[in-house]
Amino acid sequence: MVKDIEGGVTAAQGFRAAGIHAGIKKKKKDLAIVVSDHPAVVAGVFTKNKVVAAPLVVDRMQMEKSPRVRAIVVNSGNANACTGERGLQDAWQMVASTALALGVPRDEVYVSSTGVIGQTLPMENIISGITAAAPLVSREGHADAAESILTTDTFVKEVAVAVTLGGVDVVIGGMAKGSGMIAPNMATMLAFITTDARIRPSLMQAALRLAADRSFNRISVDGDMSTNDMVLVLANGASGIPEIASTTDPSYDAFATALEHVLTRLSKMIVVDGEGATKFVEIRIVEASTEEAAAQAARAIANSNLVKTAIHGEDANWGRILAAVGYSGIEFDPAATEISFGSLPILRRNYTVEFSEEEAKRVLSEKEIVITVSLHQGSASATFWTCDLSQAYVDINANYRS
Amino acid sequence: MVKDIEGGVTAAQGFRAAGIHAGIKKKKKDLAIVVSDHPAVVAGVFTKNKVVAAPLVVDRMQMEKSPRVRAIVVNSGNANACTGERGLQDAWQMVASTALALGVPRDEVYVSSTGVIGQTLPMENIISGITAAAPLVSREGHADAAESILTTDTFVKEVAVAVTLGGVDVVIGGMAKGSGMIAPNMATMLAFITTDARIRPSLMQAALRLAADRSFNRISVDGDMSTNDMVLVLANGASGIPEIASTTDPSYDAFATALEHVLTRLSKMIVVDGEGATKFVEIRIVEASTEEAAAQAARAIANSNLVKTAIHGEDANWGRILAAVGYSGIEFDPAATEISFGSLPILRRNYTVEFSEEEAKRVLSEKEIVITVSLHQGSASATFWTCDLSQAYVDINANYRS
Repeated sequence: MVKDIEGGVTAAQGFRAAGIHAGIKKKKKDLAIVVSDHPAVVAGVFTKNKVVAAPLVVDRMQMEKSPRVRAIVVNSGNANACTGERGLQDAWQMVASTALALGVPRDEVYVSSTGVIGQTLPMENIISGITAAAPLVSREGHADAAESILTTDTFVKEVAVAVTLGGVDVVIGGMAKGSGMIAPNMATMLAFITTDARIRPSLMQAALRLAADRSFNRISVDGDMSTNDMVLVLANGASGIPEIASTTDPSYDAFATALEHVLTRLSKMIVVDGEGATKFVEIRIVEASTEEAAAQAARAIANSNLVKTAIHGEDANWGRILAAVGYSGIEFDPAATEISFGSLPILRRNYTVEFSEEEAKRVLSEKEIVITVSLHQGSASATFWTCDLSQAYVDINANYRS
Repeated sequence: MVKDIEGGVTAAQGFRAAGIHAGIKKKKKDLAIVVSDHPAVVAGVFTKNKVVAAPLVVDRMQMEKSPRVRAIVVNSGNANACTGERGLQDAWQMVASTALALGVPRDEVYVSSTGVIGQTLPMENIISGITAAAPLVSREGHADAAESILTTDTFVKEVAVAVTLGGVDVVIGGMAKGSGMIAPNMATMLAFITTDARIRPSLMQAALRLAADRSFNRISVDGDMSTNDMVLVLANGASGIPEIASTTDPSYDAFATALEHVLTRLSKMIVVDGEGATKFVEIRIVEASTEEAAAQAARAIANSNLVKTAIHGEDANWGRILAAVGYSGIEFDPAATEISFGSLPILRRNYTVEFSEEEAKRVLSEKEIVITVSLHQGSASATFWTCDLSQAYVDINANYRS
């Protein structure tokens, strides 16, 4: 039983956070620190882009040294990507400054950046920002932290849940940023999750990998894969539960389910806040031969500019949906495929089309639209989340740097 | 020596064409017939989409029967795709009516459709249109034919060239339609090419495959793959040249070069006329390890909504270009990569960026933009053509059916 509760990245016991304006952006908050009062263990997934931003190089090295973590420092406004040796030095400097300001070991600090690619960080502002933010960390600081990691996002993205593991209440909370450069098939944005569960690092990594594959890796705003995407999960054991040490421990499944719940909710928030998005679209592929094939078909639909513009125009253009499945690369029988919008059947077997354009328009005029595609092949399914493609997306991205 | 000449699909000797309004669209021309006075041989490439429109099923069956062709009938306004058994019957009916009206064998007529998916053809209009168009075919009819195959295109796309093969002047001409659903990695639109060369069908198929891979398969408007794409080449031998019967015949290379020239020019026209396009963008990947890797990297850049919107906004956002190469799947060293816009270096080795924003803005304010990405890996290269992504693209596609 997963129960939604108030709060975000500090909802779990023993976590504090702060977020301030350090002067990377003109006015908005742009630097966040999250700290665990007790040594925590960490799991992480990172972008699969071959162009990897400096903070991710640093974090992977930290993770190889040990699974222990005490703090995360995040800046927005500048991605510290494509910045070469200088960028790596700057990322390490952020780690060192945060460790010093908080009095924690350097090896236990993680760093993350998001924003413009190819510009070096304004390190003076960042170092004084870290020094100013460190004393401010508090249980109440989650909202400020969540605000500080945003770029073109229009609202903060926080989630927290409680779940009972072996009779003990455990909390998982987190924050994310999304908005642009959201593509499928990897960890696709920044998300920082904290929990007071106690769990073996390898198991948490496995749970994170699976949950990310079914949440962050199943959303799409524009199909572009970022250089900076990462999801970190910190578990500090402050709830006092015995360590989850095996996948056969019933607490493992309960924890994994709660984690997936948190990641899925953050993923959906990212889609709702997609650049220029006016509609939230859930794409369900059902009766597929395998979950992989279902996800592959869903991804092709979710990334189709033609499908996304048709949805924006509230046009029941099912042919574009079928065409996208057609080029997704999966094996299927187009004549056996059925498509519904909400509960309204649009395409039935053998290309039978008998829907009222008025009813379809009514379904498509909603803010949330569910598109179900049945392949009539098997019993596997996958769900994907995306948004429409609007003129506003073009407006936002034609002038992002200025 | 390939020489551009006037004309289109009837520029080669022995070809005639007509284009009329048959009543599929409200007012515009929507039905074309191309006929060869002499039996011709045919080569073709078709969409790789698993959802294949009825005319392509028919044409593939015609091609299996024999390589001979006398006529092509094309309608716009309705794709005859996702129309099931009825659609197949309608496509065969178009073949039969055209054969009857022209007095040519049924097995030697090809059919093609483009337009809205999922609606059955208005066969009464089409049959009377075919009956009306057949007597009108003429050497002057190429422009009407080229106009009749358009959908959201804003101008007709015709090309013709002359080339001397073994001392004899041979002509290759053609017409195409494009505009939306233009994606890489297949024959990506309708194009009909005629030539008075005499060439063995298997050799013409090989020349077409290679030329299409380097032209139609290297353009992108929106990354969506259509259900109806096809390119047909008809060769009727009317020039009187001896048959090109071997790849070692020097005329084979000359013919293949001229054919690629025709296909490339039509491809570029399609990009220029991309839905909502305001800029023509040539992407050159140079110093790559293989041509395939170069094309793969170019395709990722050409399909990136973020790159395309940045170009629309005349914003020198080179980071998005490098990020797209990063997720293209090729192996490369980001720190060794260099990027230029026109002749202006933007990114040099080791992420060195020293360009004037003003100069970059000047280059990007042009209608035609060349982006060169040097990977410093080897000596292979590939060129890709695409357009920017504008608010107008969204406008057009949000309401295509209405």
